[in-house]
Amino acid sequence: MYYLDASKEALNEEYALVKKEWDDVKAKGLSLDMSRGKPEKRQLDLCGEMMTILKTPEDCKNENGFDVRNYGLPTGIPELKRLFAAVMGVGEKEIFTGGNSSLNFMYNLIVDGMAIGFPESEKPWGKYDKIRFLCPAPGYDRHFGICQHLGIEMITIPMLPTGPDMNMIEKLVSEDETIKGIWCVPKYSNPTGITFSDETVRRFASLSPKAKDFKIFWDNAYLVHDLYDEHDRVLNIHEEAKKTGKGNMIFSFMSTSKITLAGGGVCFVASSEENIAWITKTLSLEGLGYDKVNQLRHMRYFKNVEGVYAVMKKHADILRPKFESVLKEFNQGFGDTGIARYIAPKGGYFISLNVLPGTAKRTWALAKEIGVTLTNVGATFPYGIDPQDENLRIAPSNVLPEDAADIAHYVTVCARLAALEKLLEK
Amino acid sequence: MYYLDASKEALNEEYALVKKEWDDVKAKGLSLDMSRGKPEKRQLDLCGEMMTILKTPEDCKNENGFDVRNYGLPTGIPELKRLFAAVMGVGEKEIFTGGNSSLNFMYNLIVDGMAIGFPESEKPWGKYDKIRFLCPAPGYDRHFGICQHLGIEMITIPMLPTGPDMNMIEKLVSEDETIKGIWCVPKYSNPTGITFSDETVRRFASLSPKAKDFKIFWDNAYLVHDLYDEHDRVLNIHEEAKKTGKGNMIFSFMSTSKITLAGGGVCFVASSEENIAWITKTLSLEGLGYDKVNQLRHMRYFKNVEGVYAVMKKHADILRPKFESVLKEFNQGFGDTGIARYIAPKGGYFISLNVLPGTAKRTWALAKEIGVTLTNVGATFPYGIDPQDENLRIAPSNVLPEDAADIAHYVTVCARLAALEKLLEK
Repeated sequence: MYYLDASKEALNEEYALVKKEWDDVKAKGLSLDMSRGKPEKRQLDLCGEMMTILKTPEDCKNENGFDVRNYGLPTGIPELKRLFAAVMGVGEKEIFTGGNSSLNFMYNLIVDGMAIGFPESEKPWGKYDKIRFLCPAPGYDRHFGICQHLGIEMITIPMLPTGPDMNMIEKLVSEDETIKGIWCVPKYSNPTGITFSDETVRRFASLSPKAKDFKIFWDNAYLVHDLYDEHDRVLNIHEEAKKTGKGNMIFSFMSTSKITLAGGGVCFVASSEENIAWITKTLSLEGLGYDKVNQLRHMRYFKNVEGVYAVMKKHADILRPKFESVLKEFNQGFGDTGIARYIAPKGGYFISLNVLPGTAKRTWALAKEIGVTLTNVGATFPYGIDPQDENLRIAPSNVLPEDAADIAHYVTVCARLAALEKLLEK
Repeated sequence: MYYLDASKEALNEEYALVKKEWDDVKAKGLSLDMSRGKPEKRQLDLCGEMMTILKTPEDCKNENGFDVRNYGLPTGIPELKRLFAAVMGVGEKEIFTGGNSSLNFMYNLIVDGMAIGFPESEKPWGKYDKIRFLCPAPGYDRHFGICQHLGIEMITIPMLPTGPDMNMIEKLVSEDETIKGIWCVPKYSNPTGITFSDETVRRFASLSPKAKDFKIFWDNAYLVHDLYDEHDRVLNIHEEAKKTGKGNMIFSFMSTSKITLAGGGVCFVASSEENIAWITKTLSLEGLGYDKVNQLRHMRYFKNVEGVYAVMKKHADILRPKFESVLKEFNQGFGDTGIARYIAPKGGYFISLNVLPGTAKRTWALAKEIGVTLTNVGATFPYGIDPQDENLRIAPSNVLPEDAADIAHYVTVCARLAALEKLLEK
C-alpha cells in the first residue's frame, strides 16, 4: 500500500496491523545493536597468523636490515609504504605511515593547521576569529565532531548521487577566504554508500579556493572495501591533481582498521611529495614516529598488494550476506509504501535509510523501545541535527548473520509505524 | 696536571702529548656513535616472549572478556592502566593509555592547549600573541623542539643539584600570565642525571602561577630506569598536589619505550581524575583510541608491577657496565686537569659532561674528526644554543660494551685537546 495518498481508513487499518506486530516484537524483550560500523569476530580472526608472525629478533629486521624494535625510520618502514602507496595510487615519497587511527592523523593535521598553519598559510588557522569547513552530509559523525571540538564552523553541503554538490562547493570556496577545508569520503561514502563520480573527483582536483591554504581531507576509508567483484571505482584524485598542479591541496587517508584489526591496525596518509616532506619534518618534531613493529607485522602478513585484496575478498564473503539480508527485508518490508529511500551499496560499512521526513527520531525511539539500538539520528549531520529528521544509518557489520534479517525487519516495522503515526497525526 | 693554573710551558708539553694521542686515534679511521639514547639489541631481546604472547583469538580477550582487536575501550584496557597507575603512584581513574610515544602525547596536549585550551583557560593558548614555557636546561632537546615548533617562547631555567632553580620559577610564574607551562624530567634528568629533591617536588606542587591554566609537563621518562638497587627516588608529585589541591596543574608521563620496545611500546599520562576525564572526552573526539592489542601484549608480558621491575633489573645489568666504563675513563682521562664536571647518575640514559667553557663545540668537532659521533652541542638547550658552550650529552646505551671505555677515553682526549687549544690560544 502506497501510504502517501492512502485513505485515512486504509491507513488506520494498516496502523492497527503494524502496531500489533510492533507490540508482538516488543513482547520478545530483545536486545540487539545495529549502531556501530565495527567488524565482527570472524573478520578479526582472518589475520590470526599476523599475531605471531614476528617470532625472533631476526624476524624484526626490515628489508634494509633495520631492527624495527628500536627508534628510527619515523616515516614508516619503506616496504609497507611502497605496498600501500600502490594501493592508494601514489609514489613512494607521497605516503606517510601513522599509528592505528587515521582519524587521529586527520585530527593531528587539522590541529597543526590551527596551531602552526600549513606551508601556504598566511597565519595559523587558530589566529582567525572563525574558520569554516564544508561538510557534505549525511556524512561521518566523527569528521563533524572534530570540527565542533575545534570550534570550526560547519557548512552543510548536500549529497547528490554523484557526490557532494560541486556547484555549491566551487562557489563557496571561491568567495570565502575563511573556508579552509572539506571532508570527503569518496568511495562508499559513510553513510550514503555513494561513490563520487569521475567528474566530481576532477572538479575537486581543479578547485580554485580563495584560501591559499584550503585543504581537502579525502578519507578513503573504504578504498578496498568492496562487497562484490563488480564494484565501484573512485578516480585517483592525486593523479588528477598532478594534471592541475594542485597536489598540495589534497590529503588522502586510509587504514587497515577494517582490513586487519580495528583495535591495532596501521594508517596511511597520501599527498604530494612536498606535503609528505612537510609532514615528515613536522611530525619529527612532534613525536618519535609510530609503532614500526606493527608495521612490519602487517608487511609480513600482506606480503604484497594481492595479499591485501585477498583478505578483502574474505571480509566481503562475511559482510555481503548481511547486507543482502538487510536489503531484502527493506524491499519486502517497505514494499510499495513509498516511505523509504535507500540504495544498495557495493561496498563500505553502511546502508543509509531515509524514512518519511520528520519520522527518523520517532523510528529510532520505537526501535529502542523494542530493544533494537540504531545509530543516533542526526549523528550523520553537522551539529548532530538532521534538518529533515529522515536519515538512519544502518550498520549491518557487527550483528550476527542470523540476526541481520530480523533486525532489518524490525526497522521496517518501526519506520512504518512512525510514518503511520505521522500521517494519521497520532 | 691541573690545566687551569699550569705554566704555558707545561701546557705546551701536555698539548704535544695529547695532540699526538689524538693523531694516533685519528689514524685508526674509526666510526663510532655515542649520540643517541637508544637501547641496544640485548635490551630489545629481553621482551622476546612478548612478540608472540597473544596467539589465539581467545588470548585477545581482556579481563572483562572484551576483544581488544575491535574498536572500544578508548582510555586503554583497565588491567594495564591499573598496573601502570601503581607504577606511577596514582589511582585507576588518574591514568590514560596512549600510543607508542609519550612525546607525541605531550605534543598533543600542548597543541590542544593551543587550539582549544585547557578547562581553566580563558582562551586557547594560540589566541595569545605570545605564550612562554619555562625550560630547565640542560634538558631534553625534543621538549624544546616542541616549543620552537609551536612558536612558544622559551625561558631558560638553570639546573641546580636539587633540580631547576625554584626561586626563579616561583617568581616568574607568579608575575607573568603568559607563562603557561614548564618541562621537567624529575628523575635522572635528561641529560644531567639529576633527580629533583623532595623540596623541589613540593615547591612544584605548591606553585601559584598567575596563569590559571599553567601546566607542569612532568616527563617521568626514567621513573623505573635505575642502574643500582640503591637508587634515587623522586617524590610522588601527584600525591603532593593532592595536599595542595593543585592536581589539575600536573600531567606526568612515562612509556615502555625503554622497558619493552623503543619502536613499539605503550605510553601513559597520569593526572588528576578531573584532567583524565577531560583527556578522555577530548581524545574521544580526536581519534578512535590507541592500539589495544599492544596494550594487552604488554599486560600479559609484565603480569604485574613486579614484572616491570624484574625486566628493569635486566636492563640495568646490560647498561650499568657501560656507564661504569665511561665514568672510569672520565675519572682517569680528566684526572686532576680541572677541565671537566660530571656526575655519576644512578639511572637514566645519559651522563652530562661539562667541559671547559667555550670548548664543547670544539670537542665535538675534534671527536667527529676521529670518527666519534656525539650528540650535537647545544641540543640540550632552548633554541639549540648552549650559552657557555660547555655541555656534552654522553649516551652510552647504544654502543657495544667493549667500545664504551674506548669511546669515553677518546672523548677525554678531545676535551683535553680542546681545552689546551683554548688555554694556549691556538
